[in-house]
Order: sequence, then structure tokens, then C-alpha cells
Amino acid sequence: MPAKVDLAAGKLPIDATFGVASDTDARLAPAVKRFLARVARQTGIFPAPSGTAATLHIACAPCTARPVLGEDESYQLDVTPSGANLKAATVSGALHGMETFLQLIQPGPEGFQVPAVHIADQPRFAWRGLMLDCARHFPPVEVIERNLDAMAAVKLNVFHWHLSDDQGFRAESKLYPKLQQFGSDGNFYTQDQMREVVAYAAARGIRVVPEFDIPGHTLSWLVGYPELAAGTGPFEIGRHFGVFDPVLDPTREETYTFLDGFIGEMAALFPDPFFHVGGDEVNGKAWKQSEQVQSFAKAHNLNDTLALQTYFNQRILKILQKYGKNMVGWDEIFGPDLPRDAVIQSWRGADSLATAAGKGYRGILSAGYYLDHARPAAYHYAVDPLAGPAAQLTPEQAAHILGGEACMWSELVDAETVDSRVWPRTAAIAERFWSARELTDVDSMYARMEAVSRQLEWTGVTHRSSYGEMLGRLAGARPVEPLRVLADASEARGLGTGRRAKDTETPLNRFVDAARPESEMVRHLELAARKADPADLTTLRGVFEVWAANDVRFQALAEDNALLEEVRPLSKDLSTLGVMGLQILDYLGSGKPAPADWLTAQSKELTRIARPSAEVLLAGTRPVKILLDALAKR
Amino acid sequence: MPAKVDLAAGKLPIDATFGVASDTDARLAPAVKRFLARVARQTGIFPAPSGTAATLHIACAPCTARPVLGEDESYQLDVTPSGANLKAATVSGALHGMETFLQLIQPGPEGFQVPAVHIADQPRFAWRGLMLDCARHFPPVEVIERNLDAMAAVKLNVFHWHLSDDQGFRAESKLYPKLQQFGSDGNFYTQDQMREVVAYAAARGIRVVPEFDIPGHTLSWLVGYPELAAGTGPFEIGRHFGVFDPVLDPTREETYTFLDGFIGEMAALFPDPFFHVGGDEVNGKAWKQSEQVQSFAKAHNLNDTLALQTYFNQRILKILQKYGKNMVGWDEIFGPDLPRDAVIQSWRGADSLATAAGKGYRGILSAGYYLDHARPAAYHYAVDPLAGPAAQLTPEQAAHILGGEACMWSELVDAETVDSRVWPRTAAIAERFWSARELTDVDSMYARMEAVSRQLEWTGVTHRSSYGEMLGRLAGARPVEPLRVLADASEARGLGTGRRAKDTETPLNRFVDAARPESEMVRHLELAARKADPADLTTLRGVFEVWAANDVRFQALAEDNALLEEVRPLSKDLSTLGVMGLQILDYLGSGKPAPADWLTAQSKELTRIARPSAEVLLAGTRPVKILLDALAKR
Repeated sequence: MPAKVDLAAGKLPIDATFGVASDTDARLAPAVKRFLARVARQTGIFPAPSGTAATLHIACAPCTARPVLGEDESYQLDVTPSGANLKAATVSGALHGMETFLQLIQPGPEGFQVPAVHIADQPRFAWRGLMLDCARHFPPVEVIERNLDAMAAVKLNVFHWHLSDDQGFRAESKLYPKLQQFGSDGNFYTQDQMREVVAYAAARGIRVVPEFDIPGHTLSWLVGYPELAAGTGPFEIGRHFGVFDPVLDPTREETYTFLDGFIGEMAALFPDPFFHVGGDEVNGKAWKQSEQVQSFAKAHNLNDTLALQTYFNQRILKILQKYGKNMVGWDEIFGPDLPRDAVIQSWRGADSLATAAGKGYRGILSAGYYLDHARPAAYHYAVDPLAGPAAQLTPEQAAHILGGEACMWSELVDAETVDSRVWPRTAAIAERFWSARELTDVDSMYARMEAVSRQLEWTGVTHRSSYGEMLGRLAGARPVEPLRVLADASEARGLGTGRRAKDTETPLNRFVDAARPESEMVRHLELAARKADPADLTTLRGVFEVWAANDVRFQALAEDNALLEEVRPLSKDLSTLGVMGLQILDYLGSGKPAPADWLTAQSKELTRIARPSAEVLLAGTRPVKILLDALAKR
Repeated sequence: MPAKVDLAAGKLPIDATFGVASDTDARLAPAVKRFLARVARQTGIFPAPSGTAATLHIACAPCTARPVLGEDESYQLDVTPSGANLKAATVSGALHGMETFLQLIQPGPEGFQVPAVHIADQPRFAWRGLMLDCARHFPPVEVIERNLDAMAAVKLNVFHWHLSDDQGFRAESKLYPKLQQFGSDGNFYTQDQMREVVAYAAARGIRVVPEFDIPGHTLSWLVGYPELAAGTGPFEIGRHFGVFDPVLDPTREETYTFLDGFIGEMAALFPDPFFHVGGDEVNGKAWKQSEQVQSFAKAHNLNDTLALQTYFNQRILKILQKYGKNMVGWDEIFGPDLPRDAVIQSWRGADSLATAAGKGYRGILSAGYYLDHARPAAYHYAVDPLAGPAAQLTPEQAAHILGGEACMWSELVDAETVDSRVWPRTAAIAERFWSARELTDVDSMYARMEAVSRQLEWTGVTHRSSYGEMLGRLAGARPVEPLRVLADASEARGLGTGRRAKDTETPLNRFVDAARPESEMVRHLELAARKADPADLTTLRGVFEVWAANDVRFQALAEDNALLEEVRPLSKDLSTLGVMGLQILDYLGSGKPAPADWLTAQSKELTRIARPSAEVLLAGTRPVKILLDALAKR
């Protein structure tokens, strides 16, 4: 939602004569080309080769070669029935304006069109990011790139690239090739690919902040370089998840020599001045067990794990400064003597963010934006970087809060499923970072999110198309329809909300992987159940009839199919739910009250059905509950 | 359908330990890699990095660098519960066997599995092709490549690449750069890309036969090189379709000097010994109007257009021979003195194919395989290269019939829609070319085609996924569901079967472009209406109810939407059809006969609704007609 929108009368038609005239700029020119290709994809109309008029004029001064934190991202878009003007101070602003223009293209009475409108827009926060964990499961470059396109579409401007963790080292080092040779199972990004991703992102107004998580979460480093460890190897790539004991040894000079070389090498690949060093979840066990570490600690008065990590951070900080980088780290880096140019990423809660800001540290919020928890978009939308403890800050202190990042940890997503876990929910988080804090109406957010979700398909992300393919795989040679009916009414649970993550080798090909974290269809049914107009009740009846009849068909489909075995009870419950829904509608239609014991029995049954099964929630219980509550109130 | 299949007891499980051991061969090794990636995509199971056992052994002698016409394409596949063996004489045979193995992977009681089976298989015809017209609309290389993957999946082995026509010259010539500079609107394949496509195809067992259509269909050549024309320019790229008058001048030596240079250049890019020179649809007008041509014709006793074209062909033939190429051409090249190594591609009917074969010419059949006509798969499946007049040939003569090609002319398809016009119907044609002539049961063909259609998704073609995207575009910001209900019951008409092709600049973004040439859903309803078991009648009732209720929702969706305006009457008809279907079911259920005048009225209404509207057929009339006929017979 833009900061300021004034609709005017009339429409600008988008047809084969559509064209763009723009100021010349090394980043703007290819962006205009991509923009025209998007117009073509969205409308199916390709500019006539005979030449096109300049319908949209884009003005923006020549800019830096890449986006910069805090640059002026504002834009003004004026559309009239005869043409459109887009003005911005920077290429980033112009890119945002072009995305807004694309969102405005809709079919209308004379074909595709953009409404006449004046928009003056700018973001609330300067740091609007998405973190992708590419260590626990490895997404090839094409997955990264299509997600960068989708990020640009919702005006996110930071790609936080989590490149190493216990389960994999994903960046090619030429200085220390055993990092990827022994730590990646062959799944890593070459230096050329990393340069390509950085350029691809910059072209779309997105900064790339690489993360190499140290001194913990480093098992994959230690396979090739066991000498870096506090304690002795051999080490193996982590296959399971959680916090592992082995960590880097902060007391040996060789560790810092290694890291100096490595960070120097990576700093040259990633031009952004921010460099993420992780720093989370060091349990200290390996340090306590190491004589070398303990004697060093005693000699230097480093009394506990925190003191040791602070010492480590101080050393790393000097290395980063040498290469002109600002340190970014998770909550845990916030210790005494942390220099003021460091940036804290809060994942354990908003308190640490506010505390740090109060002390003059810059911070970004990620607590509340964990996509792997598979929570509804409304949950994330309600989280604001300036709410809660941050609301008590002075304006000057609050200004240290740069924004936030959605986090996609990859215990339970792979290249096939990651898009459907990131999108469309991240669009709601992106709006939280961009738009007014006062914008909190959930229904209107969902209306926008659904429209954006459909538009995101044109950027190449597969959050919608992979659904049918994955269901088709589960159905095998049999007709998929009963499975789709069940999946449409289901929601996948996430890490910490009912889903277990076993190890990196467990296939992510189950029903729960195909099902979405949030069902658009069920949300529509909830709206219908709340409104309960005659047309709504007809819609609900139709759906309940399908549910009621579905189990017979589903059980035939699931016969002799090990992959569907676990959701057979879920299917049975869906049909129960359908029958219950029909009975409630009958009572509502008859105008007669339902017997109290019948109501109690249904309520009990609903509670049972609402419990997760096969790591999935039968979201279809929600509209039925709304109707049952309405009936009970009569 | 393989030539010989013997099912045995038991299943071979496909899990994370699955692995392949194969003979070393430059083409086989990357094919095995791709095969494993396909196994992973199909199952969602990725081989554990810890190492895999060799479940499938592939044996095949080292082979030629590329597929060759007439090579031994047979394979033997033996699957037991403990492992599988694939044996073939050539890489092409091994590739076919791998595709069969992929088709056999299905979910089962213990997870993904392949049934124990012995298969001995080989093709009936050596030339099994797909022609893509890349001139009238231009598909980028990625579209070509994904279709090559799909072709390999159904064991097609010839990609006939129609690279030039009146509407565009799509190949880069370095010798004559004005061909692409002036004849392509910038849409052409570079020489590197053409080499890449040839290598990509060869890796998949597919020969590439380029076509440069001469002397007609050459408007795009003449824009840059008007001196090649019979008659004077200037010329412009053809935007409309049909037969244009301007053609090459067959009487000037400069024409042959040019073509010698050009064919030599292209011959070096396309290693296959077959080279297609088109030769179709020369109307002779330009030759009749040209003094130069007429005086030459008189001097050389070339009395008519056919004689002139025969002279032209003789000259071209010599050029082709110089570069070691066999001539392939459309029907029209079959004139007197055509040498015996030429191959005739019959598009005007099977007669010419039989006549040519009778005279010792090799031929391939395309009449009856025109995908742009949007006919049902069953129509194409009934066409056989050895049926009709060819059935009268001696076995020796019949052996000259090498096979056939499905033809995708692109007046009405672009990069977005081409996949949905080629697939899945081409799979049925591919089976016609591969499998026994006696295999003619249409229902079992459709059952296999549907399974293959779903599996083809994994090769990357978008025949299923583009459907939702294109409907979403038409719906704009509104819920797409009523549009999908209508589209599921509709079938797009094709060229010559109810669809008009205007020009290359007309957007292909209408309802008819999103709708499929053949509705899988309607076919299921037809089966249900024919069987008419109680479960079938319940299914039909459910669908008819949805249709009956759909128009109200559709009209709301179509409000103020110019793109949906044309299908408003269609939607109204669908609801009428739904109501009619429900009434018929009521009569059938009641056991009472329907009044004769009511039956007559319904029949009349059905005939009206069955007429094309907005270039689309309401295929949903078919199951209703089956039910109505059954009712009338009582």
C-alpha cells in the first residue's frame, strides 16, 4: 500500500502501442527492458515490432552502480488517460515505481488498463530483507534469482544470503578449497555464480548481505579444516538439525589468520558494506572441554562462554574493519564493547532490539518473521519493528531500528518447496516494512496479498504452480482431484508449530510439503461464514457437499499408496466436517435452534478434528466453527 | 506401449539408495545424470550423499556421437525386486529404455516403486518427428529445449526446425546478415544457439532437421535481399498469414550463388544428413508477372510453374549434394527427375506419400498430424502412415515410408501457449509412430496419454501449468474459479476448425488461447455418462450443479472486463447445460420416461449450444448428449 494514493477519473489503456522512454542509466536501461517483458507476460500483449509510442516516461538521475542503505527510495507515479510519468531520485525509487505500475495493470472494459492515479510513495524502513538459508538444503542459483525477482516485486531491498551452517558450506573459496570440497556434498555456489547473484540483485535494487555463521554452526567448515576446531576431529557434515557442540577455536592465532584470508576473499565478492558473521547459538561445550581454550581463557581473564565469544567478536571486527565491512550478527553478538557500527539482528525477541537501539546500536527485527514456523500472514503482519518495547524509545533511538528481515530457515524446505513457504506470506511482511504502521486491517491486507500472490507468478516463483505438480506426484497414475480437495482444506505445520525436522536426507515429498502454510480457499470460506449472505451459504453448501463426498474417492486413490497412508484419517475427518457443515446449514436454514447436546457433541468433534494430524491442520474446521458458533448463539 | 511387456511378481523400491551403473559413453554418462535428476523430481527423493548402490545397470556399446536415421533403437528392460537391467545396442536405445523406466515409477504400498517386468521394445518407424514452426511466432531457445526433453520422453527422434517463412527469418547467417537483421524483428537464433540446440537434441537421441522453405514462403528473406526476388521490392516482413505472391527468382544465377553460400553455412551447423528445403505453396504469380522469368522459361522450355519449380529443385539438389545433404521437402517437390535420395513429407494427404513410395521415394506422413487444427488426440491416433493408400504397397515399397511428423504451425501459438498445443496430444501421435499398428483402442490410449501428460510436467513443458496462469491473467484481481469451471468444460478450436488467424501482432491472450484443444475433464464425464453407474451419476450430478450455479458467478467476474466479454454467452450456455443435465438425471433416476416434446426441445437446445462461440466449443455438451440419448432410448 503506497504512502499516498489519489485516484482520478479515467484509465490509461495498455495495448500493443505501449512503450517507455527513460533517462539513460546503466541500471535503468535493462530494468526498463525487464519491465516491458513483464508487461508482456502479464497482459499477453507484445509491443508491435512496427515501433511503439512512449506511454510511460521515467525520469531519474544517474545513480550509483548498486543500491545503498538509506538511499532515497521514494517515487512519484502520475497516470492519466493519455500517459504516465514516473519520477524518482534514484534508480531504486524508479524500480519501485515500475513495480507499482505493474501492479496497477488490470483487465477493464476496454482491455488491459491502468487507472488514472497520483501516487507519492516511500518506504518506512530502509532495511527490508529476506534471509534464505542455503545451507541446510541447497537451492540452485535459478531458485535464488527467481526469488530476487519476487523480492523486487514487493519492494524488498536486502537479500541476506545464509551461506554456511553445520549442514553445508555453500560458497566456493579459492583460498581454502577444502571448505566446499569437504563441506558441501558438491552443492555450492561458484565465485562466478556469487558475482552473478550480486549483480542480478543490484540490477533489481537489492543489496546482498552474505552470512558466514561463526564461531558456532561451523561443522561443515571443520570437515576440511579440523585444525580450526576447539577439540579434535574428524568431523562430518551435519545431517541432523539443532545446536552442535563443535565450534571454532577462538584462542589460536591460526584461526584468525584463516578467517582474515577467508573474509578478505569473500569481501571482494560481496561489495555491500555489511557482512554478517552469525554468532548465534554457541553452547560453549567444546570450549569448556578444551584445555587449550581453558588455559587461554584463564590467562586472559575470559571467565565464561560469553566473554570468550566477545573476545572472538572483537578480533573478527578488526578483520571486518580491515576490509571495510560493518559487522552484522544475530542477537548473541550484542556484548560489551561492541562498536557502534555493528548491526544486531534480533531473532530471540523484540526486547534485545529495543535494548540495543536504546544504547545507540542499529538493529533489524526478525523475531516474529520466521517463515519456517508456517504461521499465517496475519501473524507476521501484526509484528512491527517499532512496536512493543521499541515503542518506548525516543525518536532518535528508534531511528536506529533500520527495519527487518523475513527468515526462511531450510530444515524443511528444498528447491522445490521453498517458494511456497516464502510466498505469498512474505508479501505481507514486505508491506509491514514499507507501509504505514497504522495500516493493520487484516482483511484488506489479505485481499492485497492474494492479488500480489497471483502477480508473483509472472516473476517466475513457483509457489502456486508447484502445488499441482507435488499433488500429482503423490497421486501417481490416479486422478488427483480428491487429493486436491483435501489439500485445499489443509495447512502445513512448521518448525516449532507441529512439524518435526528429521535430517537433511529425508525427502520433502509428503502431503505436508505439498500443502500450503495458509489456505486461501479456507480464508474465503471463513469470510463467507462470517458474512453468511444467501450467496455465501450456497457457496458453503457446495463446498461442504464436495467434502462430504470426498473421502470415498480419496480412500480409493490412497489404496496401496504408502505416501498417502498418513493422510487417510485426515480425509475421513474432512468428510465428517462436510457432513457437519451441511447439518449446521440445515439448522440455520430452518430457523429452528439445534438441540444443546447435539451442539456440544459437534463442538467436541470439531475440537478433535482441529488437532494436527500428519503434521497438517485441517483448516476447514475454521469456517465450520464460525457457523456452529453462530448457530449456538441463536 | 512397448512391443512386448511381461509383468512379473514383486516391485523394485525406488528410495534414497537408488543408483545407476552404466557403460562409459560420451552421450550415456550425461544422460544417466539427467535420468537421476528426473527420478529425483518425479519422486522428491534425492540420492543420499553418503553414496548409492547400483540399482539399475545400463549396458550399451560406445556409439556414434549423434543419433542416425535407421539405427537400432531397441532396448530390453528387466526389472526384478532386487535390481534392474537395461540393455541396448545404441545410446538411443538406452535413452528410450530409461524413459520407459521413468514411466514405470509410481507410488505403491511401500513408497515409490517400479513393478517387476520384462520389456523388449523397438519402434515401428525410424522417423518419428515433431515440426515446430518458429517463424510465425518465435519461441526462445528455452522453449525449444524443454520441448526436446518432452519429445525424448515420448521417444520421438526428429526435431524438424522450421526456421524461415514469410513472417520471419529465425537463423543467424554470418554470410548474409541482412537475413536476420531485416527479416526477424530481432527475434532469431544465433549460430551458437543453433549449435546448442543440435547438441541438446543429440544428447537426447533426437536428430535435428532444419527447414529453410524455398522458393516460396520467403518474404522475410527478401526484406534484406530484394534482389533475390522475382519482381521488384521493397518487401516487408509478412504480418498476415496465407500464401504471398513474392518468391525467389529461379532464373538468375545470383540466386544459386546466394543459396550455395547460405546452404553451405547452414550445412555446417546442422550435422544431420537431411536438410529440408520446404518447397510448398508456390502460387507462381510472381513468376508469371516477371519478364525475366518468362523469357528464361521460354528459352528453357519450362512451360509452367511446376516446371520452373522442378528446375529450381534440380539446382538446389546439386547444392545439397555438394554439402553432403539429402533433400527433404513438402509434397510439392515431388516432380519428374527428383533423385531417389530425396524424402517427401506429405502434408496434403496420404495419397502422395503412397504414390511416392510406390515409385521408390522415401516419405514421411504429416497429413492428419497437424496440431494447429486443435483436433482430439483420437483423431490423430487413427491416422497411420501405412494405412489408406499405403496399405496397397508391397512390403518393399512400404519400407520407403520412414514414419511421420506431428506439425505445430504457429499462426496461433506463441512461446506461452505452444506447449499446451503440442502436449499431451503429440504423445498419442508418438505412440502411433512407435507402437504396433494393431493398437487402436482409444480409451486405453487416453488412459496412457493422461498419465504421460502428468509425467511430462517433470520435463519442464508448461502445457498444464500455463493454464492457471493464463486464466489468472484474464480474471485480473478477481477470483478465477468461475472462469476455470468454464474453461474446463471448453475446447479451443484450431486453424481450419473454427479459429481465425489474423496476424502476427494479435495477442494470443484470449479465453480460446487459455482453453485446451481437448478437455480431459469432459472426457472423464463422457466415460461416466456412458458407464452410468450410481457413482458416475453422483459425479455427473455434482458437476452439473457446479455448471448450473456458475453463470451468476461468472457474469460478476466478467463485469467490466473486455477480455471476458466474448465468452459471456458461453458461460450462460454452460449453466443451461448444467440445468439440462440435472433434469435428465432426475428423469433417469425417477425411472419415468421424459415427454417427447421435452426431449426434442432439449436436443435442439443442445445442438445450438454445441456450435462454436468465441472460437471455442462447449465440450460439456458431449456427456449431456450421451445422457439425453440414453433417456430418449427408454
